[in-house]
Amino acid sequence: FQTGENAIWCYHFYTKWVTKFPMYLFLVLDMALALVESPAIPGMEWPFWASMLVEFLCLVAFAGRLVHLSMFTERRMFWRDGKNICVVVAIIVTAIDMVVYLVLTEGHWNIRWSRVLRPVFAINFSESRQLRRAFCNIRRTLLGIISVFILFLFSIATFSLLALKLFGNQHLTTYHGSPYFDNYLNALFDLYVLVTTANSPDVMMPAYNKSSWYSLFFIVYIVVNTYLFMSIFLAVVYNGYRKHLKNEVRTSVFNKRRSMGCAFHALCEPLNEDMVMSQSTWLKLVSVVAPTMSEGHRMLLWQVSDEEHQGYIGKRVFTRLADLLNIEVVEQWRRPHPLEQCAPRAYNSRLSCLVRQAVRHRFFRYVFDVVIFVNAIFIAIDDTVMAIQKAEWVFLVLYLIEILLKLYTYEPRTFFLLSKFWNWFDTIIVVIALIYAIVVHSSSYSTEVLDFLFILRVLRLLRIVDNFYRLRIVIQTLINIAPTMATHAALIMVFYYSFAILGMELFYGKVQFFPTPSTPEEHMCGNPLLVGSEFVQRQYCKNNFNNIVSASVLLIQLTVVNQWHVLASGFVITSDISARLYFIVFHMIVVILLINIFIAFVLEAFILEYTLDRGKTESAIERKIQE
Amino acid sequence: FQTGENAIWCYHFYTKWVTKFPMYLFLVLDMALALVESPAIPGMEWPFWASMLVEFLCLVAFAGRLVHLSMFTERRMFWRDGKNICVVVAIIVTAIDMVVYLVLTEGHWNIRWSRVLRPVFAINFSESRQLRRAFCNIRRTLLGIISVFILFLFSIATFSLLALKLFGNQHLTTYHGSPYFDNYLNALFDLYVLVTTANSPDVMMPAYNKSSWYSLFFIVYIVVNTYLFMSIFLAVVYNGYRKHLKNEVRTSVFNKRRSMGCAFHALCEPLNEDMVMSQSTWLKLVSVVAPTMSEGHRMLLWQVSDEEHQGYIGKRVFTRLADLLNIEVVEQWRRPHPLEQCAPRAYNSRLSCLVRQAVRHRFFRYVFDVVIFVNAIFIAIDDTVMAIQKAEWVFLVLYLIEILLKLYTYEPRTFFLLSKFWNWFDTIIVVIALIYAIVVHSSSYSTEVLDFLFILRVLRLLRIVDNFYRLRIVIQTLINIAPTMATHAALIMVFYYSFAILGMELFYGKVQFFPTPSTPEEHMCGNPLLVGSEFVQRQYCKNNFNNIVSASVLLIQLTVVNQWHVLASGFVITSDISARLYFIVFHMIVVILLINIFIAFVLEAFILEYTLDRGKTESAIERKIQE
Repeated sequence: FQTGENAIWCYHFYTKWVTKFPMYLFLVLDMALALVESPAIPGMEWPFWASMLVEFLCLVAFAGRLVHLSMFTERRMFWRDGKNICVVVAIIVTAIDMVVYLVLTEGHWNIRWSRVLRPVFAINFSESRQLRRAFCNIRRTLLGIISVFILFLFSIATFSLLALKLFGNQHLTTYHGSPYFDNYLNALFDLYVLVTTANSPDVMMPAYNKSSWYSLFFIVYIVVNTYLFMSIFLAVVYNGYRKHLKNEVRTSVFNKRRSMGCAFHALCEPLNEDMVMSQSTWLKLVSVVAPTMSEGHRMLLWQVSDEEHQGYIGKRVFTRLADLLNIEVVEQWRRPHPLEQCAPRAYNSRLSCLVRQAVRHRFFRYVFDVVIFVNAIFIAIDDTVMAIQKAEWVFLVLYLIEILLKLYTYEPRTFFLLSKFWNWFDTIIVVIALIYAIVVHSSSYSTEVLDFLFILRVLRLLRIVDNFYRLRIVIQTLINIAPTMATHAALIMVFYYSFAILGMELFYGKVQFFPTPSTPEEHMCGNPLLVGSEFVQRQYCKNNFNNIVSASVLLIQLTVVNQWHVLASGFVITSDISARLYFIVFHMIVVILLINIFIAFVLEAFILEYTLDRGKTESAIERKIQE
Repeated sequence: FQTGENAIWCYHFYTKWVTKFPMYLFLVLDMALALVESPAIPGMEWPFWASMLVEFLCLVAFAGRLVHLSMFTERRMFWRDGKNICVVVAIIVTAIDMVVYLVLTEGHWNIRWSRVLRPVFAINFSESRQLRRAFCNIRRTLLGIISVFILFLFSIATFSLLALKLFGNQHLTTYHGSPYFDNYLNALFDLYVLVTTANSPDVMMPAYNKSSWYSLFFIVYIVVNTYLFMSIFLAVVYNGYRKHLKNEVRTSVFNKRRSMGCAFHALCEPLNEDMVMSQSTWLKLVSVVAPTMSEGHRMLLWQVSDEEHQGYIGKRVFTRLADLLNIEVVEQWRRPHPLEQCAPRAYNSRLSCLVRQAVRHRFFRYVFDVVIFVNAIFIAIDDTVMAIQKAEWVFLVLYLIEILLKLYTYEPRTFFLLSKFWNWFDTIIVVIALIYAIVVHSSSYSTEVLDFLFILRVLRLLRIVDNFYRLRIVIQTLINIAPTMATHAALIMVFYYSFAILGMELFYGKVQFFPTPSTPEEHMCGNPLLVGSEFVQRQYCKNNFNNIVSASVLLIQLTVVNQWHVLASGFVITSDISARLYFIVFHMIVVILLINIFIAFVLEAFILEYTLDRGKTESAIERKIQE
C-alpha cells in the first residue's frame, strides 16, 4: 500500500459501490458477448462491429480499473502480483487479436482465439476473491494428483498393449461392424472410454462372446482403473482439500488475531500494569462496527465477554469479539398480534382461542401433510378427467385456508422472518398457484410458462420432509453449504465457458440441427459423413457447437460422462481423429479434477456438519441466555 | 465359556487346524455346488442326487461344527449369539427345502430357494471374523444412510411427477419409437436410470429437441440427484466408516491393554512398593510368545522398553510389548556371497569388482529401463514381421543377463527376500518368458494359454514405475491395503452369489446364447419376444442367468452401471415388468451401498497412508538402532 492522502482517497474510491458495480457489469457483459457474437444463438446475432465495440468498451473498463488499482499500490508490489500480470497479458492479447481480426477478415467469420481468455478477467480481478481461492485450490491439488495421474496413464497404456496382443489378431468386430482393437491408438481410446464406463459392456462383448475367459481381462481392468484409480483420485483430491482448508483457516485465524491485537493496542488504556479496554470504549466500538445491532444484543455480548463483571476486558477476551459478532442471535420477543391490537375482544374470545390452539397442535400439521400427499396422488393419476380438475380447486382452497389460519395464529412478522424458509416457500407457491388458477380459468389462454408454474405446486411436497429431524438436517446442510457450492459452480462455469468457446472455434457447423428434417441430408445432421453413425441414430444432432447454449448443454452431457464417446464420435467423424483429444482433455479436467473437487467439498461439508460440536463461544452465549 | 476340563479340551480341538481346514473346505464346496447344480455350466452338470448328496454332507458338517461349538459354550450364551441362530435357521430351512424338492419334483428342475442362503454359512461361522465385521459395518452404515435414502427416493418421486406433467402430454417418442414419460411408473424408472447416468443424454433428447428450455429440468435433476445425493451417500457412508473404525480401534486397544495388565499382574514381582517385571522374566516371556525371534532382536526390544537400563520395567512400559512385537524389524547383515566363499580370488579380482560396481550403479538400472521401454514399443508396433520376432530373442537374452548379473553382485538370499517384490516379479516373468520361448520355438504348437503367458512380459513395464518415489508410495499403499480389500471383495462376492442364484431361479432360460446363430430365433437370443430390441442389437445374448458364471459376469456388468437398463430390458421383455425390481434392488445394494463402502475404505486407507507419521514406538526403535 502507498499511504499518501491521494492514494487513500483512491483506495476508498476503488472499493466504493459506485466503481465496483460497473466492474461486475462489464465482466458479465464481456462473457455474455458469446451469446450474440458470430456463432450466435439464432435470431440474436449482432453485426460484428457492434459486438466488437462492446468488447472494446469492456477492455477499456478493465484497463481503467487496473490503472486505478496501480495508483495506490506500490509499483513493485503491483508487478509482482500474478493476477495483475494475467489481466495485463489478457488485455494485450485480446487487443492484438481484435486488430488482427479486423484487418485480416473485415468481418467475415473467422477464428478469434482470444475469446477463450475471457474468464481470465472474471477470475483475476480482486472482486472475485472466492473464485480465485477455489482456483488456487485446483492448482495445488493438481500438484498432488499428477503422480497418481501418471501412474494411471501408465496403467492404461500397459493394459492397451495387453489388449492389442490378446484381441488384435482375432478378427473380431464390434456390434456395428467396426474392427476390434485393431491398432494401438484405438485400443488406448477404447480403454480410456472404458475407465469412464461409458462403453462398458459393449467393448467387452465381442471378446466375451468368443470365450468367457476374456471377461477376466476386462474385469481386472475395471477394478484397477475404474474403481481403484478413481477412488485414489478422489482420495488425493480430498486429502489435499482438507489440508489446504486447514492451512487457510489457520492463516485467516492468525491474521484476524493479529489485526484484533493491533486494534486493541490502539484503543486500550492502562490499569494496574495491565492494558485493558473499558466497557464504554467497547460499546462505542461495537456500535460503530455493527450499527444495526440492538441494545440488548450488544449488552448480551458484553456480558459474555466480561464474565466476571469487572467493567473492563483484557486482550485475550477482546480478540474473541470478531467471532462474537459473527454469531447470529435471533432476537425474539412476543409481539402482540396485529388483530389483537385492533380487536382484542374478538381475538381473545373463546372460539378464537380454540382455533389458535388447534392450529398450534401438531395434528394440524399432520392433516395438511396428508392433504399434500393426496394432492400428489391426484396429480400423478390423470388430469384430463373433469372430477380431478375440480379437485384441484378444493386443494387450492384448502392450502389458502391453511395459510390464513396460520397468519391468524402466528404474528405475521415472526411468521415471515427471513430464516423461516418453509413459510416463505408455502406462501409463494400457493400465491403463484392462485394467480395461475385465476388466469387459466378466467380465459382459455394457456401457455407453457403457465404449465411450468402449475407444476411448481408439486414442490410443495417437500414440506413433508421438514417433519423428520434427520431429513431436515440434510436439507439444512444443503442450504448452509449453498454459497460455497455456488463458488464451485462458478468455477466449473468458467471452465465450461473456455471449453465452449474453444469447441465453437473447432467444430462450428460440423453438425447441424433441423427441428423438422425433410431432406436426407437434414436427417444426417446436415453432414453426409455422419450417415449410419450412432450419433445420428440416437438423434444427437442438437448436441453441437453452433452456439454457446447448445455448446454448454453438450458440455454438461459430457460431464455426466455417459455416451460421451458417441457424442465425441460425431465430431471425430466430421472433422478428424485428433478431435478426440478435445474430449479426452475435457474429461480429464472437468470430470477427474473438478467434479472430484466438488465431491470432496460436499464430503467435507457433510462430515463437518454431522460431527460439529457447538463452538465454545456459541455455548458461552447460550449459557448467558439461560441466566 | 465353560471352564471344565472336557470343555477346554473341546475348545482346543475346535481351534485345531485339523478341524478348521475341513470346515473351510466344506464352505467352499457348498458354494461351488452352484457350478454343477441344475442350471449348470454346460458340460459340468451332475445328476441331481450327486449334488444333493454333497450338499447333505455339507449340512451335516455345519451341524456337527455347531454341536461341537455348543459343547464348550454355555447354553445361554450359545443361544444369545446371533450368528449361531442364523446358522441353525439356515440349516433347518435348507434341509426342509431339500426334502420338499425331492418329494415334490423327483429330480425335475424346479426352484430351490434355499440356495440363496448359502452365504449365510460363509458369513456366520466364527472362522470368517473379518467378513462378519465388514458385514456388521454394512448393517450400521445402513442405519445412517436410511434417512438420506428416503429423501433421495422422495426427490426422485417428486421429479417424476414434474416430468410426467411437463412431458406426458406432448406425444414425444424416444429414438427407438417408444412413448416418452407416458405413465408414472415408467417416468420413475427412467429417472432412476438417469440417476445412474446410464441413459444420460438419450432420455433428455426428445424434450431437448422440442425446446432448449427443457434441458434445464434434466440439468437440475442431474445436479441434485446424481451429483449431490450420490456425494451425500458417499459422505454418510464414509463418515460412518470412520466412526466405526475409530470405535473398533478404541475397543481393541482397550481390550489389549486390559489383557496385558492381567498378564503383568500374573508375572510381576514386588520392588520398593512398585510392582515390576525383571529382565529375565521378560526375556523368557518373549521367547515363549515369539519363539522364532532372534537373540539380537529380543535384546533390542528390551533396550527399547528399559530405556534407563534399570534391569526391570513397570506396567506402563510392559503394555507396549504387544505393539513392539508387531513391528517388523528387518534383520540385515552382510552375508558373504556364495561365489565369494567358493572362489574368493576370482570373485574379488579387479574385473569382477568392476562388474559389480557397474551393476550397483544407477545407470545400470536406467539402461534396463530404456530396454524395457523399447521392448514395449516393439510389442506395440507389430509382431508379424520377422525382424521383430528376432528382436524378442534379443530382449529375452538381455533380461536374462540382467538377472544373472544381479545375482552375481547381490547375495542371492538377500536378493530373494520376501519383501523384495520387484526382484521376484522380474525373475518369475523372465523365467516364464524363457520357458515360453523354448516351448514355442522347439515345436510349432501354440495355444491361447501360451499367448497369455507371452503378454505377461508386458507387465514388466511396471518396473519403471518403481523408480519414482511418489508412484512407489501409491503402489506400496495398494499392496498394504490388499488384505482388507480382499475382505471387501469377499463381501461383494457373497452378495453376488445370492443375487446370481436368485437371478438364476427367476430368469433361467429366458435368454439364450448361441455362439454361431443360424436360425432367426437363435439370432434373437432364442426368444422371439426380443425381436428388434436393443438387447439383441448389441449382442448381449451371452449376458444371461443360465449358469453361475454368466450370471456373475452379468452382475459385474450391472455393477459397472453403464447400459444396465438395456441389460435389464432383456429380462423385462422376456418375463414381466416387475423384473425391473430385481435390477433396481441390485443397484441400490451393490452400487449405492457396497461400492460406496469400498470407496470409503480406499479413501480412508490412502488418506491414512499419506498423512501417517511414524508411531512413537517405531521411532523409539529407530533411535535405539541409531545408537
